[in-house]
Amino acid sequence: MKKEPSAIVLVSGGMDSCLCTALEIESGEKPALMHVNYGQRTQSKEYECFRKIARHYGIKKTLVVDSQAEKKIGGSSLLKGHGKVPPARFEKGEVPSTYVPFRNGIMLAYATAWAEAIGAVRVVYGAMETDSSGYPDCTARFARAFENAVTAGTKAGSEIKIVTPLIKMTKMEIVEIGTGINAPFNLTWSCYSKSDRACGKCESCVLRLKGFQMAGVKDPLRYVK
Amino acid sequence: MKKEPSAIVLVSGGMDSCLCTALEIESGEKPALMHVNYGQRTQSKEYECFRKIARHYGIKKTLVVDSQAEKKIGGSSLLKGHGKVPPARFEKGEVPSTYVPFRNGIMLAYATAWAEAIGAVRVVYGAMETDSSGYPDCTARFARAFENAVTAGTKAGSEIKIVTPLIKMTKMEIVEIGTGINAPFNLTWSCYSKSDRACGKCESCVLRLKGFQMAGVKDPLRYVK
Repeated sequence: MKKEPSAIVLVSGGMDSCLCTALEIESGEKPALMHVNYGQRTQSKEYECFRKIARHYGIKKTLVVDSQAEKKIGGSSLLKGHGKVPPARFEKGEVPSTYVPFRNGIMLAYATAWAEAIGAVRVVYGAMETDSSGYPDCTARFARAFENAVTAGTKAGSEIKIVTPLIKMTKMEIVEIGTGINAPFNLTWSCYSKSDRACGKCESCVLRLKGFQMAGVKDPLRYVK
Repeated sequence: MKKEPSAIVLVSGGMDSCLCTALEIESGEKPALMHVNYGQRTQSKEYECFRKIARHYGIKKTLVVDSQAEKKIGGSSLLKGHGKVPPARFEKGEVPSTYVPFRNGIMLAYATAWAEAIGAVRVVYGAMETDSSGYPDCTARFARAFENAVTAGTKAGSEIKIVTPLIKMTKMEIVEIGTGINAPFNLTWSCYSKSDRACGKCESCVLRLKGFQMAGVKDPLRYVK
């Protein structure tokens, strides 16, 4: 058995990163898991889900980054104290107010630093382009460009790749594939707005509900109304 | 006068970022200044220098990022609790133990987020390739690659550039140019190891001393011995 994990998965506590973890486990890897608290409204809930997912898979190699700058920076309704989370509205070419400026750039930079320090060669994150909110830092183009920056900005021989296994999947496929390999979706949280029962109205809830509905699988979460 | 600054300068409290700030001021800009505490040995001293430089130029638009993950991640002798800072030794092709994994990637990611939030279009950092320690995240290649990632990962129309005005300068030129425009080098700190008197032996001290010596200018810092 390898001493150090070869992969780091960014785990928010949502379905997509839960599936990324499940896929790693399914392929025989025991990845390290990283979570970032960044002042989002549902921070405690997401952290709790991250912990449960790690425990579910018996993963002890974890890193929690407490990133407080996003709240100071602002610019997103996802952050506590920065306006309301709006109901879902998917307009082509429009980036919704829930977008947190360059958040995934920050997360990937930390994950890269950790990968370089422990000798991991893959940083896995659950970006999706289909059935997404249209965030610029969730695109294949961004992942490739960031990987080039990682290659240039880390020690020669580090060879860290940015891996996005879900990039072309629909939410229906996330549910189907995850269900097929027993990804613990019951331990995940998606709602942007609430932490007790999911609101069912924000982009993230709407996308999740659509995925379960189209896959014909019952969503284990409880929703308002 | 513009409402928001168009540039953000990453200011460590050292000579190079002090000159970057001075050059912006000289060109008629009033940049915003960002500083990152990341658990480095001389953190308090560098923070104090950052504050003094901002005050010197009357800049109130500042952001301090308290980034605690680097200490958890480790992998560098620059971090408190992670070994000793070695004496300077410049070996071609070798990255010294003071390199902090992907640190500049993390800093640039935060600066990009702030730039996107306030509408700034230039992120300025004092990377140098000549007279440097050979860190991979201080190269022109990295800056260009990171800029491409920023273009891909921020909202269309953000047009944020990563600017490295010192990339080809020698330390002698830093001292000469800075002295010529009254950059307050007396308010800066460079030593990796100590916070009262500079050690004179670490890479950063050796490079600084060489710059002042070659420029024929007296270094305002006090050194051990």
